[in-house]
Amino acid sequence: MNRRSLIKGGGIFGLLAAGVAPAIHAQAAIRWRLASSFPKSLDTVFGTSELFAKKVGEMTGGKFQISVHAGGELMPAFSVVDGVQTGSVQMAHSAGYYFYGKDPAFCLGSSVPFGMNARQINAWMYEGNGLKLMREFYARYNIYNLPGGNTGAQMGGWFRKEIKSVADLKGLKFRTNPFAGKVLEPFGLIPQSLPAADLYPALEKGTIDALEWVGPYDDQKLGFNKIAPFYYYPGWWEGGPHVDFYINTKAWDDLSAEYKAVVEAAASHAHVSMLAKYDARNPTALKQLVGSGTKLRPFTHDVMSAAFKSAQQLYADLNNSNPEWKKIYTDYSKFLADQNVWFRFAEGTFDRFMQQQQL
Amino acid sequence: MNRRSLIKGGGIFGLLAAGVAPAIHAQAAIRWRLASSFPKSLDTVFGTSELFAKKVGEMTGGKFQISVHAGGELMPAFSVVDGVQTGSVQMAHSAGYYFYGKDPAFCLGSSVPFGMNARQINAWMYEGNGLKLMREFYARYNIYNLPGGNTGAQMGGWFRKEIKSVADLKGLKFRTNPFAGKVLEPFGLIPQSLPAADLYPALEKGTIDALEWVGPYDDQKLGFNKIAPFYYYPGWWEGGPHVDFYINTKAWDDLSAEYKAVVEAAASHAHVSMLAKYDARNPTALKQLVGSGTKLRPFTHDVMSAAFKSAQQLYADLNNSNPEWKKIYTDYSKFLADQNVWFRFAEGTFDRFMQQQQL
Repeated sequence: MNRRSLIKGGGIFGLLAAGVAPAIHAQAAIRWRLASSFPKSLDTVFGTSELFAKKVGEMTGGKFQISVHAGGELMPAFSVVDGVQTGSVQMAHSAGYYFYGKDPAFCLGSSVPFGMNARQINAWMYEGNGLKLMREFYARYNIYNLPGGNTGAQMGGWFRKEIKSVADLKGLKFRTNPFAGKVLEPFGLIPQSLPAADLYPALEKGTIDALEWVGPYDDQKLGFNKIAPFYYYPGWWEGGPHVDFYINTKAWDDLSAEYKAVVEAAASHAHVSMLAKYDARNPTALKQLVGSGTKLRPFTHDVMSAAFKSAQQLYADLNNSNPEWKKIYTDYSKFLADQNVWFRFAEGTFDRFMQQQQL
Repeated sequence: MNRRSLIKGGGIFGLLAAGVAPAIHAQAAIRWRLASSFPKSLDTVFGTSELFAKKVGEMTGGKFQISVHAGGELMPAFSVVDGVQTGSVQMAHSAGYYFYGKDPAFCLGSSVPFGMNARQINAWMYEGNGLKLMREFYARYNIYNLPGGNTGAQMGGWFRKEIKSVADLKGLKFRTNPFAGKVLEPFGLIPQSLPAADLYPALEKGTIDALEWVGPYDDQKLGFNKIAPFYYYPGWWEGGPHVDFYINTKAWDDLSAEYKAVVEAAASHAHVSMLAKYDARNPTALKQLVGSGTKLRPFTHDVMSAAFKSAQQLYADLNNSNPEWKKIYTDYSKFLADQNVWFRFAEGTFDRFMQQQQL
């Protein structure tokens, strides 16, 4: 073999250009970093970004590798929007409602009180205007997004005392997300913000009176049942919280068409798997919690209705003060109203009948 | 350039073998044919297989091409299991319950009366034992399967007369799927099997008294509202019918690891998109149907309860007579019971509250 003549003559390059080069180009090695907002202990949610990265690797024969980093590892858990915006990481895995403080419109991409359930937000994202509108909004932050999971309707949380009426909310120090806090503040409740690691000791010491985390599977691992007897439902502020993959727009634009399609499909696969994981694991955890003495309680209709009215007032205020919110919420709320008309017939009636049976 | 010396010296092959050859191998051109059980007019379901094929093409830069053929184009719509089994096509898109006649166990992979809803069967498939058990069963037919869509809870269908009690089912010629027919037969109902194209004329002429097809979006296109005033819900025989991609096991085994991952993720993407499409389109169609005079009616609790008991009896009989059914159903029914315990709390309560609101 005469290597020099091969190069000099342009032989291999000529051949590659003729037929093979695009294949090699398409399979260029890529390494990305993903910053998650979630701790490793949430194997449900954190596991979703690991599954996503694994699938991208498998589809590309290991040529597109994404390293997944838990919340706090590369940056604070709730700084991942900044990380993606500046390009210090190529992507993140997070939930829009963590960024209520930046702009409440972020929440419409994950969950707002009395919003869509998991199936409804899927429909809005994939087949309504959801992805389109959220992408327009996220573009200001250099973000391109893809669906990245859902928990299903969350629980209302752990309370040391019963909540029998709106009056019982007065003075209650309740750890919850900021949007739920805004809705509950008019009733004299004092919203608290605490990271996962501080929840148990704060509830145990009485620094807070109540908290909500996720649902039976995740909550059981943190042991809240040992220090609070009442477990409320539903978590009306998170009826179907949608989790997102945020991708830096330049990193996204630099991908080949093939790799874009790979990332999109891997995200969808991880997206459907996360909700399935919650639904598969929550029943066992709930049974164990009840078996160990946890008292399940629904929020009363009065509490729910008062919170619903408070939420509608907040949305009216946001429509007046925030044009980005208004643009997205106008579409979101119309879609939600239509969904609830439809879901009360075949879907709702089937579910209610089945839930009444002894199986 | 000296092309001969290049080949003679093994230059390009040596170079390729050293680093580039695996990439070229992984991108070998593949052409598959997919036989659907669905007509093109069902843009929802048929569109799901088109979306799947499109995504596989995009992810592989067009090197893995799947041509999609509507029901009847390559083989009769309900012969696709045979087509995949013999390898005359590499894959199919179908719903297991069409093959009740081959073995009722097929139905557990799609829908059985009073079975799982769409979210529950997702959980069973992806995170329970569903895919594992169904794959063991399908292996006898040389089939490897992947989730390929869901319609959500279907409607109970179009009736020319009201069904106020179980007695009204007597003598009723009702076009439905064979499993629902078995459940209803003890009440004197006469199940009918008809292809899509014959439904409208049969109902118009009175050859049949009632029929069920899918839900508002698909039903509206066939115009049943013009000849039957009563639209019943829910279609308890299809609370969440799961659609599958069936792949010939040899064709599957011959794929590279990369292509297997591509096919799996494309299927998941199409899977989540199909349900989103139904949920996004059904509300508008339902409103238009009601606006044009369609009378929505729930099946009475008596009718539902009698059908539920009949279904449980049928399952007990199948458990005694069909070991394959029993093996899968034992897992399915335990999973379903757990799901219904869990869904009645956070998820069910949230949905019921939302459905009561004026939004």
